[in-house]
Formats: sequence, C-alpha cells, structure tokens
Amino acid sequence: MKRMVFSVLVDNIPGVLSRVTGLFSRRGYNIDSLTVGETENSKFSRMTITVTGETLTLEQIEKQLAKLEDVEEIIELEDEESVTRELVLVKVQADRTERQGIIAISNIFRAKVVDVSMDSMMLELTGNQAKLDKFINLLDGYKVLELVRTGITGLARG
Amino acid sequence: MKRMVFSVLVDNIPGVLSRVTGLFSRRGYNIDSLTVGETENSKFSRMTITVTGETLTLEQIEKQLAKLEDVEEIIELEDEESVTRELVLVKVQADRTERQGIIAISNIFRAKVVDVSMDSMMLELTGNQAKLDKFINLLDGYKVLELVRTGITGLARG
Repeated sequence: MKRMVFSVLVDNIPGVLSRVTGLFSRRGYNIDSLTVGETENSKFSRMTITVTGETLTLEQIEKQLAKLEDVEEIIELEDEESVTRELVLVKVQADRTERQGIIAISNIFRAKVVDVSMDSMMLELTGNQAKLDKFINLLDGYKVLELVRTGITGLARG
Repeated sequence: MKRMVFSVLVDNIPGVLSRVTGLFSRRGYNIDSLTVGETENSKFSRMTITVTGETLTLEQIEKQLAKLEDVEEIIELEDEESVTRELVLVKVQADRTERQGIIAISNIFRAKVVDVSMDSMMLELTGNQAKLDKFINLLDGYKVLELVRTGITGLARG
C-alpha cells in the first residue's frame, strides 16, 4: 500500500470533477483528500488528489485519468521533488481559563487565532501534513468542536 | 447570480465525492472550488464547495444534497458569520535581479518563500479570497510559471 499525490490540470468546465472522481469510486477507491481551484489561466483548474492503495492499481488509474479528454496534464508529486501544503481550521472549546494554554500551543506552531467567542477559539495553521497532525494531536487535551482541513495541495520544485 | 459556499459533512466512504459532484454536474453547474479532507472524526470528511448560480437552483441543489444518504449535515457559510480561508502556492520565474522585487511583494502580504532555484521562486500565502487575488495581481509584472489554489475552506464562527 502506498500513498500517492496526483496533480491534475483539467479543463475548467462542468462535470470534470465527477468524471475524475468517478474513475476512483468505480474501483472502490476512497480519495483521502482532494482540492480543486483556479490556476494562472481561467480555462484550467488544478486538482490535487491524495489516494492510498496498491501501486499497480494507482498507476492504472493514473493512465486512465491521462486518457480523459478534459485532463491536460497529470503528474505525481513525489516527496523530495515537490512542496506540499495543507491548511487546517480548528474550533476549540475555550473558556477564560483555557485560552492561555491554547494560545501557548498556537505559538509553538505559529498558528493564528482567527476568531474568539465567549466559549471558543478558532485557530488556523498551514504546513505539511505531519506538522498539522502534530498540532491536532497536541490539542487533544482540549475539546475540539469542529475541524476542517483543505487536503493537500502542491507544486513540483523549481 | 450569487456565489454560495457550502460546508458539507459526509461519511468517509468511497463514492461520496462523485455522488455529491454529480448532483452539480447533472444540472450543468460548474463547481468553482472544492476541498475535502479529514475531520476530528475519521468516520467523516468535510467538503467545502463554492459554486456560482441562480439562488433558487442552488437552494434546490442544497436540498437534494441534504437528502443523500452519505450527507450528515450541510450548512451555508455566510460571509459575516464564518471564517473562510484559502491557500495558494505560486512558482514565479526569478533570476538574481528579480528576486528582491518578488521578496518585497511577499513581505507586504507576509507570504512565505518555500522554495528557490536558480531561475524560480515558490511562494505560499494563506488568507481570504480577496487577499489572494490581490497578491496574484501584484505578481503580474513577473512571469508566473505555475499556480495552485486549494479552494476555499471554512467554519462557522464560535
């Protein structure tokens, strides 16, 4: 079993997303994370897909993706040759006495406090997957009310 | 025409993504951006979907989404009542003479330089959509080689 990250440049038209995700689901493959957003050219979107599975099957899926008419380019983002990043927002239960401890953890990771209410705080952190996982683990002593991750995005190095 | 941001809590099982995106594409709707990643509970994923269209049609799609068996919760993230963030990675052509100018722009936005090669630099920036758009516009004097945005993610305020 291997985790692969695909960066897929696709035409920015309706239906691309369901055609691409359909290729995975028809084989019973669960996509771990997916991001899709604009690129430097409004004709195209770039999708970043993270999926875990047998190398052989994933390579077959990669080939089938490349054959789709809407797919312009597909590359595998390999650890050493690419920069990958992810963003997390976490809402933590926090009364007056808990705030200081949560701010201390945030400072260690250089996370930003983006919202505070009477009984909660929202934190934002960007980094690679390992950094985000560590941050979330350290928050374990507090009650996490909600958490959302963008999933991985990335580019090949220069 | 209105732009709506939906936050959708779904079961973390194969095929959810193509069932959800299929609802949009069957109506010819193009999803502007989509992120899906893990949550605080590994049984569920949270998707954030940005889509532009007629209010009435989008509300119908929202109702249909809510009816899907895999969808646990769907909320609309409204501007004043939520925090939304996006992450962008940009690779810019940069020889020795261009580096200083690019670093100056990065400093204004507090973007991070995440990779440098002989003839390019890669920058990372997090913020709301407007901030990212301004940053990308300011880079217009330079040659953008590659650009990837995660798409919007967000949580309702505390």
